[in-house]
Amino acid sequence: MSTSYAPPVQRLVTELSKLPGIGNRTAQRLAFHILRTSPEDAVALAEAIREVKEKIGLCEVCFNLTDEARCRICQDPRRDQELICVVEEPSDVIPMERTHEYHGVYHVLGGALSPIDGVDPEDLKIAELLTRAASSQISVREVVLATNPTTTGEATALHIAEGLRQRAPQIKLTRLASGLPVGSDLEYADEVTLGKAFAGRRTV
Amino acid sequence: MSTSYAPPVQRLVTELSKLPGIGNRTAQRLAFHILRTSPEDAVALAEAIREVKEKIGLCEVCFNLTDEARCRICQDPRRDQELICVVEEPSDVIPMERTHEYHGVYHVLGGALSPIDGVDPEDLKIAELLTRAASSQISVREVVLATNPTTTGEATALHIAEGLRQRAPQIKLTRLASGLPVGSDLEYADEVTLGKAFAGRRTV
Repeated sequence: MSTSYAPPVQRLVTELSKLPGIGNRTAQRLAFHILRTSPEDAVALAEAIREVKEKIGLCEVCFNLTDEARCRICQDPRRDQELICVVEEPSDVIPMERTHEYHGVYHVLGGALSPIDGVDPEDLKIAELLTRAASSQISVREVVLATNPTTTGEATALHIAEGLRQRAPQIKLTRLASGLPVGSDLEYADEVTLGKAFAGRRTV
Repeated sequence: MSTSYAPPVQRLVTELSKLPGIGNRTAQRLAFHILRTSPEDAVALAEAIREVKEKIGLCEVCFNLTDEARCRICQDPRRDQELICVVEEPSDVIPMERTHEYHGVYHVLGGALSPIDGVDPEDLKIAELLTRAASSQISVREVVLATNPTTTGEATALHIAEGLRQRAPQIKLTRLASGLPVGSDLEYADEVTLGKAFAGRRTV
């Protein structure tokens, strides 16, 4: 067994290679880095992994990640509670926030509908969204269906739109605009994006 | 501060992005994976990181990584103790072992000489190699200088060769052959490699 590492090294390589996009080679490189790094840095990483699993849960209102019962966005009195942006994953909240254009609250579905992968409406926080939007406590004005512009994201948006139209027909439903990314070049745009950009053209 | 993650998530992203080749984006992706993964898998990773720092040290003979005083290669009675292969890093031992061509022992320097980066002979296990090779206990027959075929690797090999010629002139000193990688194409070979391959041509 001299062609393998000492058992603790091998275990670390195995655990690291379970991470997405980390193959065996990269896992080895990371393991050797951790071996070279200061004990403080290694413990800080191990501790951060433990802590995140212990302390982070889902917001009881919007299902975003939080270390409290309600996330900081839901708690913020300056946020417009009547405007809900529906996203697939917690990681989709950050790019929306970075625009500084959005001042409503969120609803994180936890994925997109994909029957082929066994993701059905019950697996996502769709029922919770319908209940939340139809609740008499807050009169929701608009729901932005900001699922990804992909097949599964579009299907999810359509499914939610149907549900909302039945349960709360007064709510305005919107979808993020599809079109050319800012700073891109027409020459390199794919035909679907360009088609959407043409269909959604604005008067100037 | 609603544009950032909950503090435990942010801490994990920060710690992950300290790893080599892991930028902020990748760190976020890994953090979200760890959040989604089972608590068992997350704890296993945290534990593997801790364990590797606690249990893994350097072999007292060859300075390879080991969880014992002497590494398994140095302990193996079938290995030829009179043949020492000198490599830069512990990660260089595994590819050598995979060849199944080498049955000697190793000496891991812990890097390569690089005055520009402040790596001097005292920072590497060079003195230990000279003492080991000149020791009267084992009559070392050959030292293979298997540092990388790079500027710093070549300089390190030359420096060690000088020291060994003074301290133990009877020892045969060799260097791994430079040439075309097996399965490669002449058309894509760089001129330095091709030059070395020509200079080292063999009669067939």
